[in-house]
Amino acid sequence: MVGFPLKGVVPPLVTPLAGRDQIDLPALSRLIEHVLGGGVHGVFLLGTTGEGPSLGHAAQRLLVSEATRLVRQRVPVLVGITDSSFSESLQLARHAADVGADAVVLAPPFYFPMHQNDLRHYCTALAREVPLPLYLYNMPSHCKVSFELDTVRYLIDEPNIVGFKDSSGQMLFFNQLLTMAQERTDFSVLMGPEELMAEGVLMGCHGGVCGGANLVPRMYVDMYEAAVTGDLRLVHILQQRILRLSAKVYGVGYAPSSYLTGLKAALSLIGLCDDRLSEPLSSLPEDRRAVLARHLVDLGMTITPH
Amino acid sequence: MVGFPLKGVVPPLVTPLAGRDQIDLPALSRLIEHVLGGGVHGVFLLGTTGEGPSLGHAAQRLLVSEATRLVRQRVPVLVGITDSSFSESLQLARHAADVGADAVVLAPPFYFPMHQNDLRHYCTALAREVPLPLYLYNMPSHCKVSFELDTVRYLIDEPNIVGFKDSSGQMLFFNQLLTMAQERTDFSVLMGPEELMAEGVLMGCHGGVCGGANLVPRMYVDMYEAAVTGDLRLVHILQQRILRLSAKVYGVGYAPSSYLTGLKAALSLIGLCDDRLSEPLSSLPEDRRAVLARHLVDLGMTITPH
Amino acid sequence: MVGFPLKGVVPPLVTPLAGRDQIDLPALSRLIEHVLGGGVHGVFLLGTTGEGPSLGHAAQRLLVSEATRLVRQRVPVLVGITDSSFSESLQLARHAADVGADAVVLAPPFYFPMHQNDLRHYCTALAREVPLPLYLYNMPSHCKVSFELDTVRYLIDEPNIVGFKDSSGQMLFFNQLLTMAQERTDFSVLMGPEELMAEGVLMGCHGGVCGGANLVPRMYVDMYEAAVTGDLRLVHILQQRILRLSAKVYGVGYAPSSYLTGLKAALSLIGLCDDRLSEPLSSLPEDRRAVLARHLVDLGMTITPH
Amino acid sequence: MVGFPLKGVVPPLVTPLAGRDQIDLPALSRLIEHVLGGGVHGVFLLGTTGEGPSLGHAAQRLLVSEATRLVRQRVPVLVGITDSSFSESLQLARHAADVGADAVVLAPPFYFPMHQNDLRHYCTALAREVPLPLYLYNMPSHCKVSFELDTVRYLIDEPNIVGFKDSSGQMLFFNQLLTMAQERTDFSVLMGPEELMAEGVLMGCHGGVCGGANLVPRMYVDMYEAAVTGDLRLVHILQQRILRLSAKVYGVGYAPSSYLTGLKAALSLIGLCDDRLSEPLSSLPEDRRAVLARHLVDLGMTITPH
Repeated sequence: MVGFPLKGVVPPLVTPLAGRDQIDLPALSRLIEHVLGGGVHGVFLLGTTGEGPSLGHAAQRLLVSEATRLVRQRVPVLVGITDSSFSESLQLARHAADVGADAVVLAPPFYFPMHQNDLRHYCTALAREVPLPLYLYNMPSHCKVSFELDTVRYLIDEPNIVGFKDSSGQMLFFNQLLTMAQERTDFSVLMGPEELMAEGVLMGCHGGVCGGANLVPRMYVDMYEAAVTGDLRLVHILQQRILRLSAKVYGVGYAPSSYLTGLKAALSLIGLCDDRLSEPLSSLPEDRRAVLARHLVDLGMTITPH
Repeated sequence: MVGFPLKGVVPPLVTPLAGRDQIDLPALSRLIEHVLGGGVHGVFLLGTTGEGPSLGHAAQRLLVSEATRLVRQRVPVLVGITDSSFSESLQLARHAADVGADAVVLAPPFYFPMHQNDLRHYCTALAREVPLPLYLYNMPSHCKVSFELDTVRYLIDEPNIVGFKDSSGQMLFFNQLLTMAQERTDFSVLMGPEELMAEGVLMGCHGGVCGGANLVPRMYVDMYEAAVTGDLRLVHILQQRILRLSAKVYGVGYAPSSYLTGLKAALSLIGLCDDRLSEPLSSLPEDRRAVLARHLVDLGMTITPH
Repeated sequence: MVGFPLKGVVPPLVTPLAGRDQIDLPALSRLIEHVLGGGVHGVFLLGTTGEGPSLGHAAQRLLVSEATRLVRQRVPVLVGITDSSFSESLQLARHAADVGADAVVLAPPFYFPMHQNDLRHYCTALAREVPLPLYLYNMPSHCKVSFELDTVRYLIDEPNIVGFKDSSGQMLFFNQLLTMAQERTDFSVLMGPEELMAEGVLMGCHGGVCGGANLVPRMYVDMYEAAVTGDLRLVHILQQRILRLSAKVYGVGYAPSSYLTGLKAALSLIGLCDDRLSEPLSSLPEDRRAVLARHLVDLGMTITPH
Repeated sequence: MVGFPLKGVVPPLVTPLAGRDQIDLPALSRLIEHVLGGGVHGVFLLGTTGEGPSLGHAAQRLLVSEATRLVRQRVPVLVGITDSSFSESLQLARHAADVGADAVVLAPPFYFPMHQNDLRHYCTALAREVPLPLYLYNMPSHCKVSFELDTVRYLIDEPNIVGFKDSSGQMLFFNQLLTMAQERTDFSVLMGPEELMAEGVLMGCHGGVCGGANLVPRMYVDMYEAAVTGDLRLVHILQQRILRLSAKVYGVGYAPSSYLTGLKAALSLIGLCDDRLSEPLSSLPEDRRAVLARHLVDLGMTITPH
């Protein structure tokens, strides 16, 4: 059950894989216990970090059922339903409701470039048909279209839309969004890029969807709390650590997927799950993996023999 | 059965809809007879014009089975298998083979921005697993990634890849592609944008995937033949007509989907199918539809009372 | 004389015009007294807001001489020397030194797209030849090229480069830049977009180059001080005012120059200077000017009869 | 004197340099005789290939005077007046007229992103004030703004605008432009990218501004004539040579300036001028220069000992 507005650190959960479209259930359980042990305030399945759009539909459904079961209602479970097809998004949302997830998250359909009017209609229609509260997810680097401010102004009156995750990294837009969202006390504004969570929270947002919280959940929870309490000194210290992790883990592989290949390789090196990615992405090459292992040690983590 | 290299005009077939995810089978039959009557050399299902990625998977499968049946092997049937998930693309390709289609067409998976290496691996892996000949489809405006020349050079050695449809509109790339493709006599290079088919064929390509051939198939077939025979005078005359249709039909609606909304509205006005589009796109507004009707009359078409 | 590192609010001074390439000297004097009266910590001539690259060279030189004279060393005077030609930038820098300005500011030459290596060499060569301390100015929306982090890392060792103004709005880059700049105690990092100054200063930067400080200098100075002292409550209040001004003044005209046309029209409405812009930009249309006048009253300003 | 419409191959003349902002006059003379000897139909000074915007104003003026003198009215001399400042463009146009050049060429001012209305006003105002016929030059990769079709439709009624050079590489736009330009018999449409000149001429344009014609003018003149006469067989043969030169000469250096560094290095290798470029560009590195030398030999050229 989501308390509104949702606040804090909500990791976009990595999807542990044992083979093409095969969910690694023991690793999924380990990963969930790891992030919950770090104090996170929710989990988000099938996001970009969870490689949602790359998974076959059967694998998506299994992941949602199993992860929801494993979380055991300790924190809210949010499920990404982003798809290029409206009806496939809707069917996945129904499945999420059936197995007890708490909310769904929608980035725009990502094949056709679209007009803001089409985006409005799409989100409104889906918000009214899905059986769970809906978070919008702004992800222009992957979806091409960006939610414009007027579109958010229109959609914010839709009662079943309960929040907005912004991964655009456009802080001017984000600041305007924060102002706009103040009119609804149950509405949550969450920062996508983890390197910007601190300033987002300092300026008034509700938390962050930090991919790095798969790896070191406690660090992001600490940052969230430092920013909420306005402890600028601690914010500056933690920000150095977060930027360092970002450079050392996400900067090891090759653009444009170096974030995800680095994160999954790091999770593999500390023994949480395999580094296998769904097509079209591929694992960090062996030589880069060795560099990453040294970086993780520098960052104070313990490498697990493979 | 495809004769290699595939040559001529291959319309990307519009998907007639009777409701959300409901294929309008009588309209599908009318449309197929219309384009075959105009002399086209193949049909391409579930492309961008066919709104493939917006359809649910059940509707996709039904469209493929029915269209293949209705074509009755008079021309080759190509099936778009573009998806954000490798396994879903593969499953659709298997279905296409099962129901008797002739080839499959793949644009890159369109959620994750990707490195050219990832694109190579993806296309190679899929080319080896699909049970039909594979055409590559370059569509950067929708897929973000573009096939670079070195990637094509790599992939052209894959025997099951038998052609390349380029919708980038980048003629410098296209000309280089033509040179490269000369090393394989069974390899087909097809132009995407119909306004560029003439110059593509003059420079040596094999034909075009002309959306307007849903509406006036004969005009594009005539243009193909004029260009193949080097009749520049006729090319210039037909080019004026093609540009006029482009302006008058695709320029009536609102960007960025004005091509598809205009085309489907025009098909509806001449009585071939409904103007309904799959989400996220929406039909041409009523006032614009009236403008389009006048344009169609100017272009010499007959409007069917609604 | 600049104290290093330069801190606080440095308005990019609007260039008051009486005709094409004619500097309005009385208005220039009024504007300078207005901003100094609001407590700003420096002025920046011939920036983007000052329409530097649109002015003829004679007008540029006159503006620099006169403004420097009028400031009378009360605050540091920074002079934009951005040009597509190296030798023209250098000549303008020499003129700035001759007439007593304190520093020069360089955005990349903006005609040729360029490699980061070329950018490095350009900035290094110019930094060594100009007779004043040099600030770098990142302005990818106008210059196409962006300073990448490795380039800044390279350039930061150049002693005559004493600061970096970032107008990219890319906060992830900006945060990394802040970390990097800590190694030089005399190096100043300044935020370009005024809507992001607060969070920049909260995260550790030295101030902002706020265009709106031409209009209401005190508001930006207050914000700078609130952020430096970590008064989050006051930051949130002032941020609402800054965003409101941004929407009401910069959002009235037509993209992409609505910021500058709105700002100059507002300065004209409160009686500081004419709203004339250099080609290629043009003044706010009359109907929009009337809307802006109402907005300024809403924002608490006094309109001067025209 | 320009005969209207201007037709054929008009090389954008490289600017030979002996030092920063120092025109190498003997090399300029050699280069002019080289291209005129190859049968070109005009020369274009201070274009992108001529590094116009990178030169200081004194050097620009000297180049225009000297080149015009050296051409001795054998072919029309077109002078690029592109600048970020209206008044500087105008002054250069007056100088061009004073020294006997035949026409001026304007790409949009390239600092401020601008609205199409601003572009219209700019071009109209300049067309009315310059003392020579004006060609427009579409160069979005360097100027950011693109001439849209409606803007061209507006500007084509301006009598002193006598042609349009399109370097966008967007053939759909180009084809529409060709149709539009048919209403003025004195109006010339010229293709920028040399690799696209053949298809441009096949579709009806008047010629090309081929950078490679600095190096091998005859090849481009031959291609122009083959395309004008509709000799598709010869077009295909020459197109292979042009693409080969493009790959072997422009593909040797580093993006994004590999075209210009490759071209100037090649001119240096065959003894026409030094390979020095104006800042911000830099000469081809020594190792790449050796590769280029081998490529030139493969292409049949004779390397001059250095």
